[in-house]
Amino acid sequence: MIEIFDSTLRDGAQGEGISFSVQDKLYILRALDEFGVNYIEAGNPGSNPKDAEFFSRAAEIKLENARLAAFGSTHRRGVAPENDPALASLLRAGTDCVVIFGKAHRLHAERVLCVSPEENLELVRSTAAYLKSRVGEVIFDAEHFYDGWLFDREYALASVAAAIDGGADCVTLCDTNGGTLPGKIAEITADVRARFPDLKIGVHTHDDAGLAVADALSAVEAGATLVQGTFTGIGERCGNCDLSVIIPNLVLKCNTPCGKNLKLSALRQTASRIADISNVATRPTKPYTGKSAFAHKGGMHIDAIEKLDGCYEHIDPSLVGNKRRLLLSEVSGRTTIVEKAKAFVPGLERSSPETAKVMEKLKELEHEGWQFEAADASFELLTKRLICDYKPHFNVLLYKATDDFPSTDGKLQSGAMIQVSVGDRTETTASLGNGPVNALDIALKKALAVFYPVLSGVKLTDFKVRVIEANSTTAAKVRVLIESTDSQKVWTTVGVSHDIIEASFTALCDSLEYKLSMEEKS
Amino acid sequence: MIEIFDSTLRDGAQGEGISFSVQDKLYILRALDEFGVNYIEAGNPGSNPKDAEFFSRAAEIKLENARLAAFGSTHRRGVAPENDPALASLLRAGTDCVVIFGKAHRLHAERVLCVSPEENLELVRSTAAYLKSRVGEVIFDAEHFYDGWLFDREYALASVAAAIDGGADCVTLCDTNGGTLPGKIAEITADVRARFPDLKIGVHTHDDAGLAVADALSAVEAGATLVQGTFTGIGERCGNCDLSVIIPNLVLKCNTPCGKNLKLSALRQTASRIADISNVATRPTKPYTGKSAFAHKGGMHIDAIEKLDGCYEHIDPSLVGNKRRLLLSEVSGRTTIVEKAKAFVPGLERSSPETAKVMEKLKELEHEGWQFEAADASFELLTKRLICDYKPHFNVLLYKATDDFPSTDGKLQSGAMIQVSVGDRTETTASLGNGPVNALDIALKKALAVFYPVLSGVKLTDFKVRVIEANSTTAAKVRVLIESTDSQKVWTTVGVSHDIIEASFTALCDSLEYKLSMEEKS
Repeated sequence: MIEIFDSTLRDGAQGEGISFSVQDKLYILRALDEFGVNYIEAGNPGSNPKDAEFFSRAAEIKLENARLAAFGSTHRRGVAPENDPALASLLRAGTDCVVIFGKAHRLHAERVLCVSPEENLELVRSTAAYLKSRVGEVIFDAEHFYDGWLFDREYALASVAAAIDGGADCVTLCDTNGGTLPGKIAEITADVRARFPDLKIGVHTHDDAGLAVADALSAVEAGATLVQGTFTGIGERCGNCDLSVIIPNLVLKCNTPCGKNLKLSALRQTASRIADISNVATRPTKPYTGKSAFAHKGGMHIDAIEKLDGCYEHIDPSLVGNKRRLLLSEVSGRTTIVEKAKAFVPGLERSSPETAKVMEKLKELEHEGWQFEAADASFELLTKRLICDYKPHFNVLLYKATDDFPSTDGKLQSGAMIQVSVGDRTETTASLGNGPVNALDIALKKALAVFYPVLSGVKLTDFKVRVIEANSTTAAKVRVLIESTDSQKVWTTVGVSHDIIEASFTALCDSLEYKLSMEEKS
Repeated sequence: MIEIFDSTLRDGAQGEGISFSVQDKLYILRALDEFGVNYIEAGNPGSNPKDAEFFSRAAEIKLENARLAAFGSTHRRGVAPENDPALASLLRAGTDCVVIFGKAHRLHAERVLCVSPEENLELVRSTAAYLKSRVGEVIFDAEHFYDGWLFDREYALASVAAAIDGGADCVTLCDTNGGTLPGKIAEITADVRARFPDLKIGVHTHDDAGLAVADALSAVEAGATLVQGTFTGIGERCGNCDLSVIIPNLVLKCNTPCGKNLKLSALRQTASRIADISNVATRPTKPYTGKSAFAHKGGMHIDAIEKLDGCYEHIDPSLVGNKRRLLLSEVSGRTTIVEKAKAFVPGLERSSPETAKVMEKLKELEHEGWQFEAADASFELLTKRLICDYKPHFNVLLYKATDDFPSTDGKLQSGAMIQVSVGDRTETTASLGNGPVNALDIALKKALAVFYPVLSGVKLTDFKVRVIEANSTTAAKVRVLIESTDSQKVWTTVGVSHDIIEASFTALCDSLEYKLSMEEKS
């Protein structure tokens, strides 16, 4: 059984571009607890007033599975632990588990902390002892442990001994700079295991050599029983060990249970929630949870999957809450089109002339910069328009967005005017909004809701802009992807143009048209 | 010595969202050759007419370091190799090296290829033999080798023997589904090494378990001497072994030379060129080459670096053409501001009231959604405006972008009108453009070039839009980052607003102001 220690809210917050509000932290706390990690390290109340506020609010939340931990450093040289204000803040967080980091690398003790090697060991021991007399559990993060061991093995081991002497319940060995290879991690962890047979060993790795997950797996093989990382891999520099990757590796590939009431099938959803709150785009190629993790594009691969289920998949995607996707592209083939279209064009076959027609149109549009891989709703509409004699639910007769309505606070507001027709009736309306796309979105829904009240329940949930010919920059085309929801289903539409407003408007229209086409089916 | 085999143009092209033009492929070919990889696998001329065109154009290019390879499959069942049209296309590519893939997994031979196990071995042997009689070098990619070995070890080894029998010069063992752990990769590779002591063994791994780099390193330790991957890690599903990560690991951490005249210090630049051409954003946290790979944010880390150079870096960033960055943020501190500002505000100190003033303003702007971590030029202007009594080179009196000039082909064009003042003179002008931001960019430069001709040499090189409050989507704020160059220096500016046009315009103005401030210095 491996314990999972999440540091999204502490080390994760050190990542470039990451900044959590107190509210963000509370959301993430709940998400991690529901998923079933063992520990949630949530900040450094001694160095950050926002973290202090967080801990006082977190104290009101009853966690089902996880234990909350506060993080701080060894006490200051020359100040008794009971007089150190940072340790006092740490204790004020009121957590039953505290983590302290200290130097395990002799050179760092001397040059960064500016203390003698012996003084540093005493700082580790006395801090652990002071805290252990006041809280249930003390974890010592041995900073730069692996590099420190290579520099001066006995000193690094002495830092671990000092923490144990002080009463630490667990020592986490840190590859702080992220540069150690898995073989070395195994060797050094095994050395600690041999020297301290009863110690609970944790491991903390970074991805600077692209090996954070492999390093942590090596440490587990060598005897570590606690894995520290961040749920989506965010953290200082290249990030920390990605828990959303190592957890399924441990459970599915090493047959090692981990966490507490772990909900593995909620992995993708939890990672995506945390990424959203962190305001970090999830890399589509992310192992296990990425949108492309089980996406197949090569025509041959797709044909093969038809014959032998899962033959290009290392696990069943549903185990981690993900799913298989077949991608449309010039290298995929007719099989993909038929597979994707069969839900709404029953009876379509590989050899149908309609399939060839869709394929040809797709190639032409891809050449112009469109991409339907992520925009299933637009693909469905495109296919129906091409081969199903599809009647649109509305036409846009004119639209215009403009930028120059001063509002009372002196800020410019955008406006949009629109005219639509449904059958032989027209509706003309206008709206203000924050930015031209927002104004158009509101105006379009307002005009159409006259005919189709159901559209007022449609909400935009994501809006992505991608420049697609990077060489000519602002003169380049943009591809806009819009994700919408009616609270039940989520769908994505695409628009491409030299003009971001035109591209957005195309995707907005498709989104509402798609909703109306779904209504018809049901 | 490890040989590096790049498949960006073949397996990389299978990645979601990747689509190369012939011209793209030629650029990447040159970039890879200049960097010094040993092999460039550039496509499948039998399955893709675009690839056939590429090979005929590539034949005119003299490569300095790399060998070009074409890729195809074993010949069709029931057709003699000399009558197989796909093999004919493969040979027409005219490369001195060809790669063929075939089944090494018994179940896949039976269920996907629908041949008997013996027939499959004969397909492998006869295809290798036919090709070896016509080209200099034949590599056999043993598909699903590792899974196949676990399923039926003797059969997987027999597929390798068949390729050797046919005359293959190298067999690349593929972890096609990307799910094998490094320990297993080592064990299985060592088994092949033991069975075929003279064989040149290659390894091809995928990142489905976040272990592609670790897997390939394991195979190298166990005897593989050729590493196949893609330079930026793109490829089917989660991507292939990332060569930009494994190459520095091999060279700097394993002391294993690789490639041919390898230019390690051009690693970052090469990865960034290839990512640009592939139209893939480089993940900032990418090991070695990411923008954040050597970025430090935590105040303690930054203070420590001052005392002990490189104490939070696993290698010297310049070895791979990257550099250290100190980030501005609420958790970094005054040291970072002083470090960053010392180039343009000499004499600024940690304790100066000016430093506190900058810090306070930064916090306020960060709260509103600004981020200066990536926008050094805007940070410099902000600091100078706050504490240096900075005189702007121009003022914008009005600007307006609009969307509705029909051009002769019936498409709407955007227009922008602008009025600027420099001293007591004003200049009013207008411009058309593709989209409102492009129109504003042209109009602004046109107006200012009357006073500052040097500005006509400034070009936008990147334009990124980020929605920063994802919950309210089109009503959310956007952050625009604009990268500009004068062919010598590259700089980045930032703008934030509810309105994408306003945010873009802020960043455009800062870009030109920054250029003018640089001119003054020189």
